[in-house]
Amino acid sequence: MASSTSSLTLSQVLLARAISHHASTQSPDNRVSLSPRSLPAFSGLKSIAPRSTTSPRRRLLPTRQLRQVRAAAVETLDATAEASLVEKSINTIRFLAVDAVEKANSGHPGLPMGCAPMGHILYDEVMKYNPKNPYWFNRDRFVLSAGHGCMLQYALLHLAGYDSVQEEDLKNFRQWGSRTPGHPENFETPGVEVTTGPLGQGIANAVGLALVEKHLAARFNKPDNEIVDHYTYAILGDGCQMEGVSNEACSLAGHWGLGKLIAFYDDNHISIDGDTDIAFTENVDKRFEGLGWHVIWVKNGNTGFDDIRAAIKEAKAVKDKPTLIKVTTTIGYGSPNKANSYSVHGSALGAKEVDATRKNLGWPYEPLHVPEDVKKHWSRHVPVGAALEAEWNAKFAEYEKKYKEEAAQLKSLITGALPVGWEKALPTYTPESPAEATRNLSQTCLNALATVLPGFVGGSADLASSNMTIMKMFGDFQKDTPEERNLRFGVREHGMGSICNGIALHSPGMIPYCATFFVFTDYMRAAIRISALSEAGVIYVMTHDSIGLGEDGPTHQPIEHLASFRAMPNILMLRPADGNETVGAYKVAVANRKRPSILALSRQKLPHLPGSSSEGVEKGGYIISDNSSSNKPDVILVGTGSELEIAAKAGEELRKEGKAVRVVSLVSWELFDEQSNAYKESVFPAAVSARVSIEAGSTFGWEKIVGPKGKSIGIDRFGASAPAGRIYKELGLTVEAVIASAKEVC
Amino acid sequence: MASSTSSLTLSQVLLARAISHHASTQSPDNRVSLSPRSLPAFSGLKSIAPRSTTSPRRRLLPTRQLRQVRAAAVETLDATAEASLVEKSINTIRFLAVDAVEKANSGHPGLPMGCAPMGHILYDEVMKYNPKNPYWFNRDRFVLSAGHGCMLQYALLHLAGYDSVQEEDLKNFRQWGSRTPGHPENFETPGVEVTTGPLGQGIANAVGLALVEKHLAARFNKPDNEIVDHYTYAILGDGCQMEGVSNEACSLAGHWGLGKLIAFYDDNHISIDGDTDIAFTENVDKRFEGLGWHVIWVKNGNTGFDDIRAAIKEAKAVKDKPTLIKVTTTIGYGSPNKANSYSVHGSALGAKEVDATRKNLGWPYEPLHVPEDVKKHWSRHVPVGAALEAEWNAKFAEYEKKYKEEAAQLKSLITGALPVGWEKALPTYTPESPAEATRNLSQTCLNALATVLPGFVGGSADLASSNMTIMKMFGDFQKDTPEERNLRFGVREHGMGSICNGIALHSPGMIPYCATFFVFTDYMRAAIRISALSEAGVIYVMTHDSIGLGEDGPTHQPIEHLASFRAMPNILMLRPADGNETVGAYKVAVANRKRPSILALSRQKLPHLPGSSSEGVEKGGYIISDNSSSNKPDVILVGTGSELEIAAKAGEELRKEGKAVRVVSLVSWELFDEQSNAYKESVFPAAVSARVSIEAGSTFGWEKIVGPKGKSIGIDRFGASAPAGRIYKELGLTVEAVIASAKEVC
Repeated sequence: MASSTSSLTLSQVLLARAISHHASTQSPDNRVSLSPRSLPAFSGLKSIAPRSTTSPRRRLLPTRQLRQVRAAAVETLDATAEASLVEKSINTIRFLAVDAVEKANSGHPGLPMGCAPMGHILYDEVMKYNPKNPYWFNRDRFVLSAGHGCMLQYALLHLAGYDSVQEEDLKNFRQWGSRTPGHPENFETPGVEVTTGPLGQGIANAVGLALVEKHLAARFNKPDNEIVDHYTYAILGDGCQMEGVSNEACSLAGHWGLGKLIAFYDDNHISIDGDTDIAFTENVDKRFEGLGWHVIWVKNGNTGFDDIRAAIKEAKAVKDKPTLIKVTTTIGYGSPNKANSYSVHGSALGAKEVDATRKNLGWPYEPLHVPEDVKKHWSRHVPVGAALEAEWNAKFAEYEKKYKEEAAQLKSLITGALPVGWEKALPTYTPESPAEATRNLSQTCLNALATVLPGFVGGSADLASSNMTIMKMFGDFQKDTPEERNLRFGVREHGMGSICNGIALHSPGMIPYCATFFVFTDYMRAAIRISALSEAGVIYVMTHDSIGLGEDGPTHQPIEHLASFRAMPNILMLRPADGNETVGAYKVAVANRKRPSILALSRQKLPHLPGSSSEGVEKGGYIISDNSSSNKPDVILVGTGSELEIAAKAGEELRKEGKAVRVVSLVSWELFDEQSNAYKESVFPAAVSARVSIEAGSTFGWEKIVGPKGKSIGIDRFGASAPAGRIYKELGLTVEAVIASAKEVC
Repeated sequence: MASSTSSLTLSQVLLARAISHHASTQSPDNRVSLSPRSLPAFSGLKSIAPRSTTSPRRRLLPTRQLRQVRAAAVETLDATAEASLVEKSINTIRFLAVDAVEKANSGHPGLPMGCAPMGHILYDEVMKYNPKNPYWFNRDRFVLSAGHGCMLQYALLHLAGYDSVQEEDLKNFRQWGSRTPGHPENFETPGVEVTTGPLGQGIANAVGLALVEKHLAARFNKPDNEIVDHYTYAILGDGCQMEGVSNEACSLAGHWGLGKLIAFYDDNHISIDGDTDIAFTENVDKRFEGLGWHVIWVKNGNTGFDDIRAAIKEAKAVKDKPTLIKVTTTIGYGSPNKANSYSVHGSALGAKEVDATRKNLGWPYEPLHVPEDVKKHWSRHVPVGAALEAEWNAKFAEYEKKYKEEAAQLKSLITGALPVGWEKALPTYTPESPAEATRNLSQTCLNALATVLPGFVGGSADLASSNMTIMKMFGDFQKDTPEERNLRFGVREHGMGSICNGIALHSPGMIPYCATFFVFTDYMRAAIRISALSEAGVIYVMTHDSIGLGEDGPTHQPIEHLASFRAMPNILMLRPADGNETVGAYKVAVANRKRPSILALSRQKLPHLPGSSSEGVEKGGYIISDNSSSNKPDVILVGTGSELEIAAKAGEELRKEGKAVRVVSLVSWELFDEQSNAYKESVFPAAVSARVSIEAGSTFGWEKIVGPKGKSIGIDRFGASAPAGRIYKELGLTVEAVIASAKEVC
């Protein structure tokens, strides 16, 4: 049993294809399915009910029969649908794109027209997936890095039978509330793995997806049961190739030897400004060879279907390197007057040219029509997908019997359920605990979490020893040690962020963190924004969070960064002040799986403040000390992070002078905004307008907290190179300044 | 005369070196200088008075004598200082770095110790510069892209005789107010061309510097007078190589064939996290060959001085490609216990290891001591530099005689003086002018400015036809048409920004603009921040500035971007509403040569509003319409950009209902902040708390304008894919919403 189960995974795609091909030639009611009796419920987070055509009978097919069909499948290894039907299917994809863009009078028909052949071959012949459960864990992942060509992906999801893209959705392409937005969005369209459009992000996400597969396979696969086993495919265009982030991520993919990452480079020589000759004449093949990839060139991507198939076969045979398949295509293939020009890239063809294209490709159908034989041909993917998932579920059941502990871990990665009591692993501090930089306190938290969260992986952009991000119980994830969990991103912040988005979106239980100096969020802001937009709960560990880093000077000192992230939707900007607040920040960050968190952490030592608490952090803002009564302090002092200490000291001094002073920690503005009005009033009573804030960053936005009669002490200039204490003093971030301001506003 | 002047430039470095070598063996008082009688005053923006040792006698050296010395120079082509002195000089550089870092107890000794040989050869043997005028136009440019190694550059500037880095400055390394900050800053230290430290920026800046040289040489050089003729050198490390921005910029450098760009890659195999093997195993040579560079490998960069010299010679001989000289070095060379380890990268060696290094390299001197013979050897660079500049000035005088018009243009590029009345080239609009997207109005301005500003160059990151950035009277700057002025950056936003920083900092009269969608400022934010910090007056033309772009959806719709730049120091965030405001924004952007500007421009058509004005823009905020009296409106409506129209319409409606309504355009918060309190009160009287703002972006920060009793209409979520009008309506950015809010606050 063991060895046959092992061999099962290797051929299951082919198996399923052969069966389904057979099935698709029968009437729907007689179709054969391969689902074993019991389906574990956890094979995808959002398991979707099987299509109504799934009859109980199919679930009873005995294991013996499975094996026989499998044997037959291996024999039909190279069998594909009739050539004419393939061509028709490819033209269906082309016209779904052309027609949807035409109807919306907006969109990008050029890429789908050129990439329809590779798209068809991937979704119809190569990839394993279950259309009725887009979240099936062991599916192959597909990323359209050239996201503007999203109609390619929508057409494929539609043909494959995904419920998320029905005919109605194609008609509503790019309309308010539709599931077919202008670029692929994972949070709108099940079947879309990641959110692309901003160029280069998708291929970097794909590196993250492939990384997780390699990592989990190394951790969980057994000689007799390769329970984790899928490919990651991507299509990227010239634009993706030009973006620096793709070079960063692809350099890492080569370094890590991600052999199951197969990227198609749509080499069509056209970008928005015209021929790529005007700005892009580098030798991409040579660059990728330099990056450690296997490179294949398919010279005729328009009609050389067998060349595409052979390239994929070759790519799969190369197991120690990712593969770039450069596919030379014609953008807008089929359009007699616009093909191979920038005009077909990003605009509807126009009624006249749509007609001309129909004539040219011999397409007599109405807009958005899928011919019956094409529909029938693709219809097998629903039963095949169900069978693939069922087969995998059976395999998992076997796995669970033999490897209880591993199975439980893997299950939690698949479902995203956090272990009960995970947060108890985190430490607590008292004012007597020795002063410590929050970056060091962060490391304690990271190491505590690593022991309880099976999907916790992460690392730094070559600053591990400064960001304090090493999980000490693990080694480095490397080509030959992929089971380890410390990631070494090199000096590639942007690639790091995008790869972490891919990691987070691979499986709900994967919790990636990544780190650099806070100021260098500027390098990776495009990735961070996509974390926020695509609900990827990445944890950004950002140390050296102010002028407090000292001598490195203004190029390294963040000023506007806190404000810039407070203004960004769906992200938590946390700036803890000490041990308990750092713990609270991690509790929040881990709990928020659909909202990324940025932790701004100090380089310099900070005391543990009386009154600070991790529970307070969960409310975003709270009182750490107060000698007022009836919610009427003379003055409220507000601080965050390393300046909370200054506010607290100023509070003490003012109290000595007889003032009623409240000191508030405003560690996360977003969380505080979410509290009830009553709670907010209990912290910042409307009647108290005497408020002073202090934060080592831009004062932009603080007016909301301190009001027109308050004062904000901050930094509205660039920093300087000097020891930290001196800069604080020179720029006026001192206890004395807070006291003086408090007296002014009281 | 003509031909000899031409040949002059080709040999002048050698000439000068030979003379100076001779000179340095004499007593200072007898040194020979080659300055001709009259020095044009414009050879650098901030011309610095010649050193006191420049005696009148030197200015009188006859032209004939110049030629004789030149002939001698050619013969001593390969003559360099005695090997032992070279080694001593190199060790001087090493110990200046070691000692300064030790004194500061902060900094990066490793790189200077490893790169001292190439640094010495560049500054002592190869580069042409004038230490007493760091702004001499025709100097070779040097960029330390690996900016953390700044003590290398400070040591070299000190030895070469720059006034900016004297012994006192070395003693104050990384201290408050010093001219030797923790990373090289062009605005602090004359002789430093650009601001580096954030990795990868410097090499991209160097591409911009080399681009300007190639462009100006093509525009201004004559067969008999090559008035523009310099090299651009850079040193980059493993970190720079890993950053995507360097790949972007280097791909363009190869595409453009920047033959006079010579980059040294300090291949030391160590980055902060340890051996580069853990994250960086790509084949850099192959990648650069793919990018179209000439690649040379110097295997022993520690002591192979002649190999370094030969590599530079070879690089100069390759005229159609930039050259990467990979120099394998030992980080921390000379430190017996720390060399070749990450521990020497970013920390002081410690007293014990400093001693051990002194012993190891046979260095008996006190900290920060420059041995007399080394000092004497380097002292020739002051007279040589003066001679080089003088020679060039003479050449320019010849040029001016023959090519008046070109000389005047070149002069204005060198001095940065804008042509008188340049702003008159810009158009004016009336409310009757046809409605137009501000991106189109921007194009009109760009084209108008192109006719009057000789240093106006720019382009888009593959969105020229969307950003509307083509200067129609010019062709594309390309390898074989470098005299043209439209730049084609490809899809490389980050590289684009960094290259533009290099362009702006090459010469004061160079005014680069660059363009993409506003949301993609996220890709280039690190470059934009360095524009602001380093006082590079780049103009960022950012179109599609809101949800108004419609169907492309949330990945393409900026939300938090206006706020995020308003929080950034030393940058102007401008969001014009119509034709006159777009003109005003360009006036401001061109006039601000030490402060970059970002123009946020609409994709959609906008009417020209009654009351809008370019003069208003210069004040940042101003009243476009008002029916109140005595500065007491019932309500103030504030808008920016495309939403000013909504505010204006709401104002009209409210006035119909009898309200006294003021409508304010707040086009630039920074400029408005700079106005007098009286002016601010005249726009936003403190007594009027009924205020409503509308802007299609985050409301973050608006509390400052509308106060606690006002209302801000904005977007605090991500956008959506749909036609623009629908999104505006769904997200509540409507005339009706403004009216309703106004009634609430009145």
